[in-house]
Amino acid sequence: MNVRQTQRPMPRPTAAVEAIPPTTPFVGPEELMRSVGRSDFVRLGANESSFGIAPGALAAMIAELPRLSWYGDPESLDLRDALAAKHRCLPSQVLVGAGIDDVMGLAVRAFVGAGGVAVATRGTYPTFAYHVTGYGGTIASVDYRADGAVDLDGLVERAATVLPSLVYCANPDNPGGRFHGREAMARFARALPPETLLLLDEAYADFVDEGELPDPEIDDRIVRLRTFSKAYGMAGARIGYALASERNASIFQKIRLQYGVNRNAQIGALASMRDATFHRWVLEQTAAARDDYYALARRLGLGYIESRTNFVCFDLETVERANAAVALLLERGVWIRKPGLPPLDRFVRVSAGTPPMREAFADAFAGVLETL
Amino acid sequence: MNVRQTQRPMPRPTAAVEAIPPTTPFVGPEELMRSVGRSDFVRLGANESSFGIAPGALAAMIAELPRLSWYGDPESLDLRDALAAKHRCLPSQVLVGAGIDDVMGLAVRAFVGAGGVAVATRGTYPTFAYHVTGYGGTIASVDYRADGAVDLDGLVERAATVLPSLVYCANPDNPGGRFHGREAMARFARALPPETLLLLDEAYADFVDEGELPDPEIDDRIVRLRTFSKAYGMAGARIGYALASERNASIFQKIRLQYGVNRNAQIGALASMRDATFHRWVLEQTAAARDDYYALARRLGLGYIESRTNFVCFDLETVERANAAVALLLERGVWIRKPGLPPLDRFVRVSAGTPPMREAFADAFAGVLETL
Repeated sequence: MNVRQTQRPMPRPTAAVEAIPPTTPFVGPEELMRSVGRSDFVRLGANESSFGIAPGALAAMIAELPRLSWYGDPESLDLRDALAAKHRCLPSQVLVGAGIDDVMGLAVRAFVGAGGVAVATRGTYPTFAYHVTGYGGTIASVDYRADGAVDLDGLVERAATVLPSLVYCANPDNPGGRFHGREAMARFARALPPETLLLLDEAYADFVDEGELPDPEIDDRIVRLRTFSKAYGMAGARIGYALASERNASIFQKIRLQYGVNRNAQIGALASMRDATFHRWVLEQTAAARDDYYALARRLGLGYIESRTNFVCFDLETVERANAAVALLLERGVWIRKPGLPPLDRFVRVSAGTPPMREAFADAFAGVLETL
Repeated sequence: MNVRQTQRPMPRPTAAVEAIPPTTPFVGPEELMRSVGRSDFVRLGANESSFGIAPGALAAMIAELPRLSWYGDPESLDLRDALAAKHRCLPSQVLVGAGIDDVMGLAVRAFVGAGGVAVATRGTYPTFAYHVTGYGGTIASVDYRADGAVDLDGLVERAATVLPSLVYCANPDNPGGRFHGREAMARFARALPPETLLLLDEAYADFVDEGELPDPEIDDRIVRLRTFSKAYGMAGARIGYALASERNASIFQKIRLQYGVNRNAQIGALASMRDATFHRWVLEQTAAARDDYYALARRLGLGYIESRTNFVCFDLETVERANAAVALLLERGVWIRKPGLPPLDRFVRVSAGTPPMREAFADAFAGVLETL
């Protein structure tokens, strides 16, 4: 006999929010440190910049900290002027938010929403799926190519069938690290259905020459996401932006958190952009770190994915070995992450560290491989 | 003859987002400065703390700025431990976000949502309405009492009729500045329908003795919002939190921006909490500023609202005079704001300034009143 319980009246979330499964895209290193009783790690797990922030940004932020009692400019006027000049577009085509995750959430909320469908690569940056699920949409996914690159043709095919409101593509890609050049991306964008928005996540684009990126031309069919978290070394500041048509920017403007960006982040970002010497140095150091990792992989007899980012994926050949390597490295005080889904889940992903961090990783990694 | 145009296929926002009217809850002073060609204002418009941030917080943030290349802890573990100790609750009952606006958005998204109804005071903190509209809900509103206080009985009556999913109440209130004590608030909370969540915005609660606030007991029917933006002088940092039941916190956890809080804001907030001497000094200075404003109002022959916050509303008797006063003060380099809706729209709202800021305001205000 089925007895239907009478529910006691109490505040309840909406059915849409109730249906969302609890998920954590990324467990933070602080929680991991608590769990293993450590007070620090060699931090190579989140593709943070190991090369710090620009001296000019540091000086500007220290000078302005006493005025942190003021709200930041809700329109980020000065920063948007500078970004518009950099990207040869209008300030009204730049929307600043609290990191790419924030702006990505706006795009999903505005263009996918409840019941909407997005197309994306299976196993790409998980916060995209977090947003789609959180706003009640679903993802039609396409596998990575065998070489670990995003399958642009596969995304086009899937989009032609599904006619999604949005296609998500990270380029350079995370967690794979592969990059498609401007011609391939232009063909890809043209081949998508006309009703589909291309959400192009360029978090790692600062590691690529601007000339290899898509044209600055911005129309209603593309939103590009950029960040100060990676090459500019300001992950903790939470500041990123979208390059979008005026129409799309005005849509995001209606739903964004108006006072969502830290004032000092705005000041640091602006100062960062002016520190070209530091920026070049970071790119050189990052390239050196990648080369070091490739050499290490060869020395250890491991495969790896050529990367255009500030991280490298090492091939551990099986998911089990890759999982074990992450856990054992953690015990040795080295924090890395790994892709969660096939075919990349047999890889571990290691951020570009400073020379001492690379050495610490190389030692620990060699030791771990011996025990696997 | 009606000709139905064929729409060219192109990416379109969801119908829900398309239906949202463009609104700006608060135009920032930076935009106003550009519009009048000034490079600074006496900033008395946003209830920012004119007394700056705690020396301990400043020192801690300067020391940690070089590590801004690291993401902040997505779980704010250390800060939540400290907040839980302060509020005599569990860390799992504290949810940290990028200011009250952020956490308020989560509450509206989770409990109001598309087609939902909230009850609130007409003319209260406009970002609440911004969120409700943005997530597709509507507001059933209740007028302020004649004395400028939130009408708790009116909210209860309206809630009894409407059975809203959420009732919003700011206490102390903004923009009025009035406060209801713990007995009145306890009666109010008990009188709401059992299916209604009370969203209690305590942005200004740090200006009131903890003993006058509701009991620390937290259940599924109340979410309290607190911030470091006001008494702690960290508005530009964007950091605030919700005190919520574990069930409600876990609901917000499913939809919040996991890496949404600035790392340095977390560090500064924690250090702020430890600087009791500074905190007491800010409260003394704020009380002195209020007394100064009351004396000024009497000297100028104006009414005012007794405030328990860091701002005071001056009665200009008509909406036209109040609007004109704001515009004329701006021309004289003094930036204030005013309530937008009756009955408070005949008032201007002035933040607690330092003695020189108060003097600059008093001079300009007296001059403006002569021209009205």
